[in-house]
Amino acid sequence: MGRADLDGLLVSSLPSVRYLTGFSGSNALLMVTARECTLLTDFRYATQVESEVGSSATVRIEPSSLWTGLWSLLGATVGVERIGFESAHLLHRDFSRILEQGARWQWRPSVDLVEGLREIKDDGEVAWIERAIEMAESALERTLGMLGPGMTETAVAGMLERNLREAGSEGFPFDSIVASGPRSALPHARASDRVLQRGDLVLLDFGAIAGGYCSDITRTVVLGPASAEQEDVYDIVLQANLRASGAVRVGMKGMAADAVAREYIDARGFGEAFGHSLGHGIGLEVHEGPRLARSIEAPLAAGMVVTIEPGIYRPDWGGVRIEDDVLITTTGPRVLTRYPRDLIELS
Amino acid sequence: MGRADLDGLLVSSLPSVRYLTGFSGSNALLMVTARECTLLTDFRYATQVESEVGSSATVRIEPSSLWTGLWSLLGATVGVERIGFESAHLLHRDFSRILEQGARWQWRPSVDLVEGLREIKDDGEVAWIERAIEMAESALERTLGMLGPGMTETAVAGMLERNLREAGSEGFPFDSIVASGPRSALPHARASDRVLQRGDLVLLDFGAIAGGYCSDITRTVVLGPASAEQEDVYDIVLQANLRASGAVRVGMKGMAADAVAREYIDARGFGEAFGHSLGHGIGLEVHEGPRLARSIEAPLAAGMVVTIEPGIYRPDWGGVRIEDDVLITTTGPRVLTRYPRDLIELS
Repeated sequence: MGRADLDGLLVSSLPSVRYLTGFSGSNALLMVTARECTLLTDFRYATQVESEVGSSATVRIEPSSLWTGLWSLLGATVGVERIGFESAHLLHRDFSRILEQGARWQWRPSVDLVEGLREIKDDGEVAWIERAIEMAESALERTLGMLGPGMTETAVAGMLERNLREAGSEGFPFDSIVASGPRSALPHARASDRVLQRGDLVLLDFGAIAGGYCSDITRTVVLGPASAEQEDVYDIVLQANLRASGAVRVGMKGMAADAVAREYIDARGFGEAFGHSLGHGIGLEVHEGPRLARSIEAPLAAGMVVTIEPGIYRPDWGGVRIEDDVLITTTGPRVLTRYPRDLIELS
Repeated sequence: MGRADLDGLLVSSLPSVRYLTGFSGSNALLMVTARECTLLTDFRYATQVESEVGSSATVRIEPSSLWTGLWSLLGATVGVERIGFESAHLLHRDFSRILEQGARWQWRPSVDLVEGLREIKDDGEVAWIERAIEMAESALERTLGMLGPGMTETAVAGMLERNLREAGSEGFPFDSIVASGPRSALPHARASDRVLQRGDLVLLDFGAIAGGYCSDITRTVVLGPASAEQEDVYDIVLQANLRASGAVRVGMKGMAADAVAREYIDARGFGEAFGHSLGHGIGLEVHEGPRLARSIEAPLAAGMVVTIEPGIYRPDWGGVRIEDDVLITTTGPRVLTRYPRDLIELS
């Protein structure tokens, strides 16, 4: 805040509120000044908020709007003139509100102030992510043992999600993707009522949550013996995954990491079929900074945890994606996901 | 758009994009003019978008940013000067973008243009909501048959979610709430690793998704015979639910609906313990307009589907909430949820 010449920062992104205070509720504003943090929330969280926040912030339960509470709080605060707000998280509606109702103060858009801190994980945060990865891997193991032709994708998602819960997951970081046969060529397919058939590629992309932290993993399996074509495509994606996972390191630009996988897939003749970027940071959000993509100049740093998820998608034929979670350390990449990457042929 | 003196409307709310075009992906901008609708999305949805959108919009797959695509589209469009944007859905970051990169056009904030349309459901939409309610009710029935002391809340959530999937749910409209014993006093508790005990109140608040449309239902049960105090509190909440569900009708203000339940709970001595509002609309989003709350002047209209969810929360003791989904018709309220409301004592 000092560097940005701000007396205060209004944090409206809920994951950033959680990062700074521990509060996990769905309605909050956090006012940070040099002297104190004040968290505003509503009645529904009155009991929970005290135990979550502890001494990290002063809590105010607002009977009506959090904004009404904010004006009252700021009106009673001395020496706060220039206040930052999160440009990437404040809606235009609320921006209009601060210009009108908060006209007494000077409002300055800020970008990535808290997100920048969140990109670097400390040991405690890495431990939660590892726990979330273990949950996802144990759920995957159990689910693959139950999966077979004749089930719908939705039923498979149900087994997977129950196994995630049995493993202790606090919830689901995103809608589970279970995509079979031609639907595996849809990179963001969710689960449908399509019935799994022998010979199908089945792509499972899902995660767990532990201590608020997310894991994100993808494996693609075949129902029955793989065809030569399935083996070939799988091998290209696997090699791209292994190369990129082994290459990411401190100081490397996001675009350079992306290029490791992309150039390999390109050289094997499937460049057109890898249409998304290589990966993204994970933490309190399942998609956060940094990004590993063609346009990203920002360098990787120690403590970042990123996904490495190359894929090949061929309309009407199917798709393969293999996704791991990788910690960047000063001594090189550490792949946190341990689930086998060799092609699994389910009988 | 005519009434708002606009030549075009930029729709950035994904549920509103889905409402207008059928597209269910996670990245889209929709430009609506008097002549045509143009949907911009990315590679990941190239296959899916065509089948979902049909003739309702022209689709453009953007290789880089959707915003780059938008400027190119608008640059080639004649006669569009005044463009509305959704103030309640556009982030300040993107607002800055349209002021800078879109300086050629006049941008006007609009509020609730599409949301207002979405509040009134047609028969097809009501049928999807009813389907989502049936899924939730069948999952609840199966889950209550499996639930007992010794299980964690998380494990119960896992059973419930699997049963929702088995019933065909496309996903979960919000994090399932399974709150037992003293945790049932937390109105937004999610599920924890607390172990269910005999004598506990267990509050389950969850929903299903069918055709993109959500249901939202809460039931509170007792593990074993209810105490007299549990029975008393339950009865107050039940009476408040029945009175409000029977009272909501065309022309009634949101605040008047809320008052029906609130005044009853107040008269029975628990006014302080009902700290949230009575209900909200459901549809493509699980929380949408209209709102049934103390400050809401807007009247109810035929075709709205709202939740009625009074509750009583007593810290350290526990809480009770009973939530139904109600369709407003010209001939009165129609309660769509059919699951029994009498207190269930699980043995």
